[in-house]
This record gives sequence, structure tokens and C-alpha cells, in this order.
Amino acid sequence: MKKNDQPLYYFDYLCLGSILNAQHPESAKRGRLAHEEVLFIITHQTFELWFKQILFELASIQELFAKSPLTEKDLYTVVSRLRRIVGIQKLINQQFNILESMTPLDFLDFRDALTPASGFQSVQFREIELRLGLSHDLKPVNFGRFSESDRCHLHQIAEQKSLFELIDAWFQRMPFLKFGDFDFWRTYRKAVGNMLLQDERTIRNNSLLDESEKIHQLHELKNTRRAFDCLFDTKLYLEQQQKGQFRLSQTSTLAALFVHLYRDETMLQLPFDLLTSLMDIDEQLTVWRNGHALMVHRMVGTKIGTGGSSGHEYLKSTIGRQRIFSDIFNLSTFLIPRSLLPRLPEAITGTLRFQAPGSLGQ
Amino acid sequence: MKKNDQPLYYFDYLCLGSILNAQHPESAKRGRLAHEEVLFIITHQTFELWFKQILFELASIQELFAKSPLTEKDLYTVVSRLRRIVGIQKLINQQFNILESMTPLDFLDFRDALTPASGFQSVQFREIELRLGLSHDLKPVNFGRFSESDRCHLHQIAEQKSLFELIDAWFQRMPFLKFGDFDFWRTYRKAVGNMLLQDERTIRNNSLLDESEKIHQLHELKNTRRAFDCLFDTKLYLEQQQKGQFRLSQTSTLAALFVHLYRDETMLQLPFDLLTSLMDIDEQLTVWRNGHALMVHRMVGTKIGTGGSSGHEYLKSTIGRQRIFSDIFNLSTFLIPRSLLPRLPEAITGTLRFQAPGSLGQ
Amino acid sequence: MKKNDQPLYYFDYLCLGSILNAQHPESAKRGRLAHEEVLFIITHQTFELWFKQILFELASIQELFAKSPLTEKDLYTVVSRLRRIVGIQKLINQQFNILESMTPLDFLDFRDALTPASGFQSVQFREIELRLGLSHDLKPVNFGRFSESDRCHLHQIAEQKSLFELIDAWFQRMPFLKFGDFDFWRTYRKAVGNMLLQDERTIRNNSLLDESEKIHQLHELKNTRRAFDCLFDTKLYLEQQQKGQFRLSQTSTLAALFVHLYRDETMLQLPFDLLTSLMDIDEQLTVWRNGHALMVHRMVGTKIGTGGSSGHEYLKSTIGRQRIFSDIFNLSTFLIPRSLLPRLPEAITGTLRFQAPGSLGQ
Amino acid sequence: MKKNDQPLYYFDYLCLGSILNAQHPESAKRGRLAHEEVLFIITHQTFELWFKQILFELASIQELFAKSPLTEKDLYTVVSRLRRIVGIQKLINQQFNILESMTPLDFLDFRDALTPASGFQSVQFREIELRLGLSHDLKPVNFGRFSESDRCHLHQIAEQKSLFELIDAWFQRMPFLKFGDFDFWRTYRKAVGNMLLQDERTIRNNSLLDESEKIHQLHELKNTRRAFDCLFDTKLYLEQQQKGQFRLSQTSTLAALFVHLYRDETMLQLPFDLLTSLMDIDEQLTVWRNGHALMVHRMVGTKIGTGGSSGHEYLKSTIGRQRIFSDIFNLSTFLIPRSLLPRLPEAITGTLRFQAPGSLGQ
Repeated sequence: MKKNDQPLYYFDYLCLGSILNAQHPESAKRGRLAHEEVLFIITHQTFELWFKQILFELASIQELFAKSPLTEKDLYTVVSRLRRIVGIQKLINQQFNILESMTPLDFLDFRDALTPASGFQSVQFREIELRLGLSHDLKPVNFGRFSESDRCHLHQIAEQKSLFELIDAWFQRMPFLKFGDFDFWRTYRKAVGNMLLQDERTIRNNSLLDESEKIHQLHELKNTRRAFDCLFDTKLYLEQQQKGQFRLSQTSTLAALFVHLYRDETMLQLPFDLLTSLMDIDEQLTVWRNGHALMVHRMVGTKIGTGGSSGHEYLKSTIGRQRIFSDIFNLSTFLIPRSLLPRLPEAITGTLRFQAPGSLGQ
Repeated sequence: MKKNDQPLYYFDYLCLGSILNAQHPESAKRGRLAHEEVLFIITHQTFELWFKQILFELASIQELFAKSPLTEKDLYTVVSRLRRIVGIQKLINQQFNILESMTPLDFLDFRDALTPASGFQSVQFREIELRLGLSHDLKPVNFGRFSESDRCHLHQIAEQKSLFELIDAWFQRMPFLKFGDFDFWRTYRKAVGNMLLQDERTIRNNSLLDESEKIHQLHELKNTRRAFDCLFDTKLYLEQQQKGQFRLSQTSTLAALFVHLYRDETMLQLPFDLLTSLMDIDEQLTVWRNGHALMVHRMVGTKIGTGGSSGHEYLKSTIGRQRIFSDIFNLSTFLIPRSLLPRLPEAITGTLRFQAPGSLGQ
Repeated sequence: MKKNDQPLYYFDYLCLGSILNAQHPESAKRGRLAHEEVLFIITHQTFELWFKQILFELASIQELFAKSPLTEKDLYTVVSRLRRIVGIQKLINQQFNILESMTPLDFLDFRDALTPASGFQSVQFREIELRLGLSHDLKPVNFGRFSESDRCHLHQIAEQKSLFELIDAWFQRMPFLKFGDFDFWRTYRKAVGNMLLQDERTIRNNSLLDESEKIHQLHELKNTRRAFDCLFDTKLYLEQQQKGQFRLSQTSTLAALFVHLYRDETMLQLPFDLLTSLMDIDEQLTVWRNGHALMVHRMVGTKIGTGGSSGHEYLKSTIGRQRIFSDIFNLSTFLIPRSLLPRLPEAITGTLRFQAPGSLGQ
Repeated sequence: MKKNDQPLYYFDYLCLGSILNAQHPESAKRGRLAHEEVLFIITHQTFELWFKQILFELASIQELFAKSPLTEKDLYTVVSRLRRIVGIQKLINQQFNILESMTPLDFLDFRDALTPASGFQSVQFREIELRLGLSHDLKPVNFGRFSESDRCHLHQIAEQKSLFELIDAWFQRMPFLKFGDFDFWRTYRKAVGNMLLQDERTIRNNSLLDESEKIHQLHELKNTRRAFDCLFDTKLYLEQQQKGQFRLSQTSTLAALFVHLYRDETMLQLPFDLLTSLMDIDEQLTVWRNGHALMVHRMVGTKIGTGGSSGHEYLKSTIGRQRIFSDIFNLSTFLIPRSLLPRLPEAITGTLRFQAPGSLGQ
């Protein structure tokens, strides 16, 4: 019941007066409605509504991470909201197929009326990328097609700490990397060393490979070994970071690796779910870019977009390139089988487990 | 380029100013934003946007059917648009899962503020049902929760010919049921008669069935036989139609059955695609109702909804009941294998095929 | 590398020799391959493979619950596997649409060859239902179409503790329902009482409802009140349980309700995720039944299935009826807004929270 | 009923004895079952079953195209089957998400046992690519990980006419490119010329672009113009074809462009649906490659795969590159708005329309 006891109607509550009267096809203004323009408008409007929802969740997550300390209750909230974002991404990634029920010729019925607006100049989408932590070159030219106030807004967002940076900082603060007397990482390096040695033997003995492929694979293995060495050598790490091999700081990389390895420990379950959700978001972003690039390819071929937006070729090139959480995927390079994992001393697992086993329902 | 040569911005073109400022959580007005209310609002708004798109397609299809004659070009357009509707339905049927990332307790954070608005008093959804051809009891009480002008609008829609009625009429006009000397239906009845006889034998000889089940199945078979007899006896047909066994007129049922049987004939391909699309729409509507009923069950349990909207039990009861194109599904009861199909005389297939075979790329 | 150092081929590892040579269309044996029979066979085979995976996960979950005590690590595993099951269900629920690319007439090309095999006599599907906890009437007649050894197997499964029973027992053992001096449930009942009173007022003052609907809703409200009273009165509860109103034991219902209410507490997050996963499984089962019923309706109309399997009408009737975890959905009936929730005394929250706040990354 | 009147059981019909006993985890053979290996096996087996279905449909489509003449009835069958393939692709593209419910550490529990089998050495997948028309370098090294007989099989497939080649040949034979006196293409080129001139004006006057971007876009436009000129100059076309700009022959490109432009004509509807289905298949293939690359990235990071299969980096590079029907997407470059389309003379539309308008239901 509304405060003033006026009954609240569904229609008013959802502002359907605004929402459902916001479709004004340009083609109609020019005298002849292009039937598919309505689909074009509504599909983009639903994209934008969902973008707003994603931004709302992202901003709330950033706020939680900015708090210090972040409680486990908060972390549960964070993971739930990241999962919701993934759910929304999966949904909207299917919208391209609906838009593709419009054919290229249908599109031409109103494409001209749209010039120089681009098919996709979404400020909100850029904001999502910035909030997640995609590094944009913020030179005016890249945001040239946005209005002055939009550009201003995006610059402000770019100056805030992105989710990537907040997570980097949070992993750096993780307490469980101090192991007292136990030299965890030395033990671990030895185990990985053995694993890589075993990999080398496997390659050399693999009768299915010819000589040139063996050489190639042994070369790759050498790279893996070098990358692994970097993890423990700050100077080397910084060098590789410069080259774009890593985005996370060295400490965070080690913390995230540790979470990956001991995610069975009660206290690391949520941090592990966090890592997984971030990979899911990254994955769905590539699906989005792929879907978008192909839709553009279908609609305009190899032409540049309306209003000079970047064409299909450019979009295609961004699919795999613009990844935000590659570092987390890359961690798998350095995993070793559970059977080879160093057992943590009691003193340490104690800090990672907060209760007597079996305390839930004995 | 806009007429007056002012550049057209994406933001303005999509009226994002209206769309993205239409989220006003009641909880915030009362002093404390319930985080999930934003998801609740935006999910419903995207539902409504897609409903608008469905209505736009439906209205255009109704218009095409109202035209006489309907050309084959038109029919192609109709089928494409029906398929687009199915695509949209499949998309929005997944939105319930996203809404369910809100938990019942989250919902209670703002449920109170919504009373007496119902979770779902969508005029557009009712309009979709009416346009498709669901027979609503239009007594004021059923539309009691809509505003006066909404009720008025729905009454107007209800008076127009629904898609169901238009299709019924269109099938009645189909030219290819006049077979000259060839008594198609007599030949056909004989074939079906043989098939049912064979079915009877199968049941009697089925060693996997015990006696009571055999009796049950033979009883069912008798019903099938009677239903089939009705198809050819106008008086019986009308009786069964009264009882709700059929909604389509007798002639239309026969025409649709014929399309089903000879859909391989070039000229019947599109009418067959039409039948399939209508079943798809009906199917997706049941998925929608099931998803809606379960979401309500999750959120409010067995309580009646906010504002006294019908509760879960009621919704559940409508899932299978409110079918619009059941008749088309039911046609399968009367199909016979291709191998038993009467061969149509040349004179007839000639009217169903408009070209020399192989004329596309020889 | 295989033990004996023989290279392991992908083809052999996956037994593709068996898998890909297991398609033997009956129509081909009779001299003329019905093209769609291959789709029919392969779709069912993938169904069965996924059923096997679901059974594998279910059995492992049952084993974990049978262990005592169940550690939090185990519970994390349980929830992950339940979520995987939901993922598989969502996938296979889409397979009906693929099967429906076969038309009813296509189906008739080989339906005859299948008699008296039913379209769907899956022992594994029955086993899934039994393991989850659907109460089957195990009289021979219901399993009449299975072989002797299948029947035997299903009886054995039916005698094991189902997931439903294991969860019921587990909730009964939950430690946190003993609140010492604090009379939690008395405080809670008072809060719910107030909420129901408020609901009554809302109904009486709702100007959008006419008199008869008000009466109906007040009647419903009375039922809700009575149901709520049952929760705290063992005799009444047992009576209602007899009538099928509840399946869970009284203690379990209260424990699950408590988890629902305080799921923000760290230690209750996983139990809450468990409840949610069980509802998701139940929901996806209804989607499966709906999809199955409609596919059968499409293929055979109102006829009974091949081999006398139950027809569309029967299937339709099971969609909403055969729910396993309805009790968990129903809990929402008794939730109250967070703002009205009794604050738990420190002594109790202490047992529900195992760490200093902020201990993850300060 | 089986020929010999033995009842046919569902279990036997589907060879479930073979299908459900084909899961033999290597980890179990070594003494300790890795729980997720079962998921790994079953997911790949369902992939392979669906691949078999896709191959079955593809082979039947190739057979139909090899027939001459291809009737319109055949074409309807072809389009239906292509759409079924797209449906299957959409389904299996979601299976990666299910496999990803296995974590990298879970994978390591049995990864070692798989060496040197690769995660994905699917002969069937290669056959799908070859049948569709992907040009593979068939040097032994590329198929090095297949058995001798598999390699042999793939070579055989590679020698057959691929779907791409069959379609190329079919479009070349299309009858409706002979326009008698009407010089269709001259009229068309003039219309495109005007459109490109208009595009140039738009770029020059676009106040949203800075100078360097204008130069870039005008350069792009020049490329478009040149590409368009190629369409009508056999020598230039062949040159561009050498460079990989086109894969289709010149005649086919023009025929496909014509179909695109006049798809409203009754007789061109099915050919247009064919073009759309081919693009859909190509699109879903990119989704598959993207899903596969990301799953591998998740599981093994930047390492090369087990058995030296190509790692994530390689896979990522193939996503956008290995397109089969790019030519069809590219056609959109040369479309002009319907309003500018030359009207076809009656004599020509006559050959494209085979019936009096309105002949279906007047």
C-alpha cells in the first residue's frame, strides 16, 4: 500500500507509460514505417535495461569491496551478485539471434535514417567494461561519438577503482600467505618442477608426435617453466607484467593460486567461487563480442557501420583480445594434482577452518 | 541523417532518457532501498517491452490475414513473424530464472510496498492471449484489477477477430479440398480404419500388458475411433465442438489435416510451417505459465499474491488448461503413415505444384 | 599414458566403437530407412547418457549424506553436484525442441516398427525419481513394461533412503534449534501473527476487490493461519502430514524455515544453497514433464502411446502433481520481512558464525 | 512389433547395454576413481553422438544436392535439415558450461591418465568441417594423432564434393540470371554507385568524426567500391579469389546476391532460407570454437594440451578465422535498399512466381 494509501497500479509502478511509449521509428517519421525497425529499437532497449541492471550490481559490488574489512557475509553477497550478472549475460547473449530474424535487406529499409548514429554506441556498455577493469585508451577520439556529458561520465568512472583493481588489492591483503616456519612455496615449487619434468618425458616418449612437433612442444614447455619461475622472482615478474603477461600483482597471483589449490578448505570456498564467477563473466563477454561481430557482419558485410562505427573486421579482432580476467584462467598453468599437493600443517589449516568437523547436523 | 540534418544520437534514438529513468523502487521512497527491487522492476520492464514486440507482430499478422486474398508472399511473412514470436518467447521464458536469483526473503523486503499491486497485472499479456484467441470470460471481475481504460481496451481487442478465428476462416477457404471425381476422404477413412484395426490387434497381442490394462487401452481406442468418425459427420462434429473437443470448424480441421498429410507438396509447405509455428507458440505459452507458477510458488508459498492476485495453486491449474491451438496437436491422432497415404491424382497435385520439377538449378 | 605405455587414443578412451555403432533403426531392418528414426534414437541415447550422469551424481550425494557427520566440506561438494544436476536438466530440457524438428508424419514412418516398445520406458528416469524421493506405487503393474531384472533393480533403489529422506533426517539433526533461554519460536510466531493481521487489513481495505473476492481471500488467509499453527503443534502437524499437506517432518520444516530466515549467517549459507538447489531440481523436473507431455501430444495427438504407454492426457496430469520438494517452496508462506525478524542473542549467533568478521582480507 | 513378433524393449532398441556400459574412467583403473572423469567421458560421448547426427544430416543433404535436378521438395528437405543442424549446434554449444562445472584441479585428478590422448581428437568433428567445406591442409602431420584408418577415412571425405562446393555449383546453374533484354546488373550497379556516393557524403559531413577518422573511413569506402567492381569483372574477381577475398565463384556470388535482393519473390524464398541457414551454421561454429578455446584456457591455462594437442592460444586464433560461408555474410556489403531496387520486368518475375496471387485461400 502506498504511503498515502492510494492504490499502486502495476502499470504506474513499472512506469509503463514511459517504457512503452519510447519507440519512435525514424522510418515512420519519414513517411513509411519499416516493420523491423521496431524490433531493432526494442531489442536495443532491452539490452540497455539489462546493462543498467548489470551496472547496478557492479556498483554495489565495488562498494562492498571498497569497505574494509570485507566480511564473509559480504563475500557471499558479492558472489551471488556476480552470478546474477553471469545469468543476465547468458540471457542477453541470445538476443542477437532474435535480432537476426531481421534480414540485411530489412535493415537497409531504415539503416539510412539512423546515420550517423551507430548501431551500438552504448555508454552503459563502455561503463560496464570500465567498471570491470578493461583498460580503455580514453583519448577523446575513442569516445568521439558520445556526447560531452557522456564522455565526462566515462572519465569519472575510469578514475574510480575498477573491480579488477579492487580484487587485486583484496587478494594482496589475504592473511593466509604467511605460513610461519612452513615454507609452503618452496615445497610447491618442487612439486611443480617434478610435474614439468614428467611432462617433458611424456613429450619425448610420445610416439604419436613427429620430430618437429616435439621440438615445438618442448619449446612451449620451456616457456611454461620460465613463466612459473617469474611467479617467485619479483624482478622477473615485473618485467613480464610490463609485457602484458600478467595484469595482477605478484602477491595477488600467488594468493589466487593458493585459493585455487586449497579451495576445499571451508574458508577458501567463497574466494574460489569468486574466481570462478569472474572467469564466467569474462567468458560471457567473449560470447557477447562474438555475437555482436557476427550480427554486424551479417547486416552490413564488410562495410563500416552506420555513422562510421567500427566494422565487422574490427569487432572480430576484439573477441579474444579484450579479456579482463585472463590472469585467472592462466593460473591453471601452474596447478598440480591434488595428490602432489603439500599437506598444510595443522597450524595453518586451523586458520582456514573455523569449526569442528561435522558441526552441521551430527 | 535526420531530416533536419541534426546528428541522431543512439541515446536519443532509443529514448534512453525515458527508458533508463523509469526505475523508481517503492522501498527507496520509504527510506531504505531494497536491493532486489531494482531487479524486480527491470525484469518486468523487459517482459513488457518484449510483450509490446509480440503484440506488434501479432497485430501485423492479423492484418495480413484480414486481407483477402492472402498471397504466398504474405504467408511467408506471416510464418517468419510467428517464428520471431516463438524466438522471443523462448528468450523471456528464461527470465524467470534470473528473477529467482532474488530469494523469497529478499522479495519480502519490498513486497509490502507493492500492495495492492499484483506481481503480474499485465494488460499486454492479456492482450496477447486475446489476440491469439484464448477465450476469456470478460466479466468485470476478471479484469477487476485493471484501470477503466485498460478494461475498455481489452474489450475492444476481444471483439476483433483473433488469430485463431482468422486462421479458422482461412483454412475454410482453402481451395484444394475439392477433389472432383476423386473421393479422397473415403479412401482416407478406409486407410485409417485399417490402421486402427492394426492397433487393436497390437494391443490384444501385447504380452507386456495385463488384462486390465488391455481393457483400458481398447476403451481408449474406441474413443479414438469415435473422434475420427466425428470428422466426417457434421452433426456429431458440432456436438463434440459444443463439448470442447474441437475448437476449429469441421472444414478447417479437414483442411489442416490435409496440409499435415501432404505437406511435402510444394504449395503446402508454407501452410504446414504455419501449423508448426502455432503449436510452437502454444508450447512456449505453457512453458511461460509453468515458469510463472513456480516462481510465484517460490516467492510466496501457498499464500495469495500481493493485492490478492491469484496464488500459485490457481496458476498451476492453468498451465495445461489454457491452450489455444490444441486442435492442431490433436490432428496427429488421425495421421496415417506415408506408405498408406492415398496417392493424389495428377489433376490434383497439379494444382498443388506450380512448376516443372527441378526448375531451380538443373 | 596408459600403464602399459600403450598410447591411449581418444576413440578408445571414449569407447566410441560401442557408442557410435549403437544406432540400429528398425525401419532399416524392414527394408526402408525412415530418415528421422536416427534422430529419434540418438536423442534418446543422449537423454540416457545424461540420466546416467545424474544418477552418478545423485548416488554420490546420497552416500555423502549417509555419512555421519557431514562436514562443511562435504556440504560444499553436495551443493556443487546438485547445481551440476540442474545444469544438465536445463540442457536436456531443450532436447525436446530438437526432437520436434521431426514431424508427426515423419514419426509414423517408423512408429509401427517400435510397437510395443514405448517412446519412453526409461528405467534410469524412474531411478532418478526414486532416488530423489518421489513416492512411486511399486505395484507390478506400474512397472509392467520393464524387464524382470529392471523391476528388481527399481525395488532395491526404492528401499534405499532417498535424497528426500536423507535431507529430512539431516535437518532433524541440525544443532541450532536449541536456543537455551531464548524462546525464538514464540517471538517469531508473534511477528508472523502481526504480519497476517496486516494482510487481513490490506484485503479488507483493498478498493480494487469486490465483495466476493474479498470473502475468498479472507478464507485463504484463514487457511494460511491454520497451516502456520500446525508448525508448532505436533498433533495437528501429523494430521496435516497424513493429508499430504507436508512431507517433511515437523522438526525439519522448522529447521529449514530457520535456515531460510537467517541464511545471511555464514554457517547457514551452504544449507540455504542446498534448499535452493533442491527447488531448482524440482522446477526443472516440471519443465521436463511439460516438454515431454507436449512432444507426445504433438506426435500422437490424443492416442495412447506405442506399446500402450500412457498418453498425453496422463502425462499432462503429472506436470504439476509429481513434485518432490514442494515443502521447501511452501516455506515461503511463513517468511516474515527481515525488518521484523527477531534478533538472535549473541550466544546463538556465535555458534552460527565461526570467525571474526573481516578475517578474509582486512 | 518386431518381425519375429518378439516384443521390442526400449532398452534393446536403444542399445542401452552398449551405451551405458561404455564409461571406463582411466583413474579407476589406476586404483582411485576421479569423480569428475565420469562427467568428462559422458560429455564427450554426447558430443560425439550429436556429431554423428550432424554427419548423418550433412551426408543426406550432400546426396540431395548431388542429384540433378534438385526439386523444390528436395530444397525444402535440405533447409529443414540444415535448421535441425543449427538446433543441435545451439544445444551442444551449451555443453561446455556443464563441463566447466568441473574445476581445473578436478581435471588434474585424471588428466595425467589421459596422456597422450588429447582432450579433443574427434575424427567426426574433422569430418563435419570437411563435409561443410573447410579447407584443411591434409598433410599427415595435421592428422598425426588419428589412427591410420581414420586418416584414410578423412582423406576420402576430403575428396568428395563438400557442401560448399555443391552449393557453389548449384548457384551457378540457377536459371534466373538470364534476363533477356533487361540489363539487370547495369541498373543495379548504378544504384549501388549512388548509394556509395551517398555514403561518402555522409562521412564527409559527419561532424562527430575527426579528420583522421574521416580519412580512414574514406579509405575503407574505396575498398568497398573496388570489391564491388570485382563482382562484374571476371579477371579482377579471379585475382581477389586468389587472395582469399572470395571463395564462391563469380557467377554464384551474383546468383546469391540476386536471391538476397529478391527473396520476397515466392520462388526465391527457399533459396534465401538456405543462405540464412548456412550463415547460422557458420555462426554456431564460431560459438563452438570460442566455447572450446575458453574451456581449454580454463582447464590447462597456457600449457599445451594433453598429448600435445594445440593449446588455448592456437584454438583462440581459429575462432574467427575458420569460417566457411563468409562469402554469404559479405554479400550484405553490396545490398541496396528495397526502395532503390530495380523493378524486375514482368517477363522475369513470371518465371519467379508460379501461381496467381492469392491462390491459397481467397
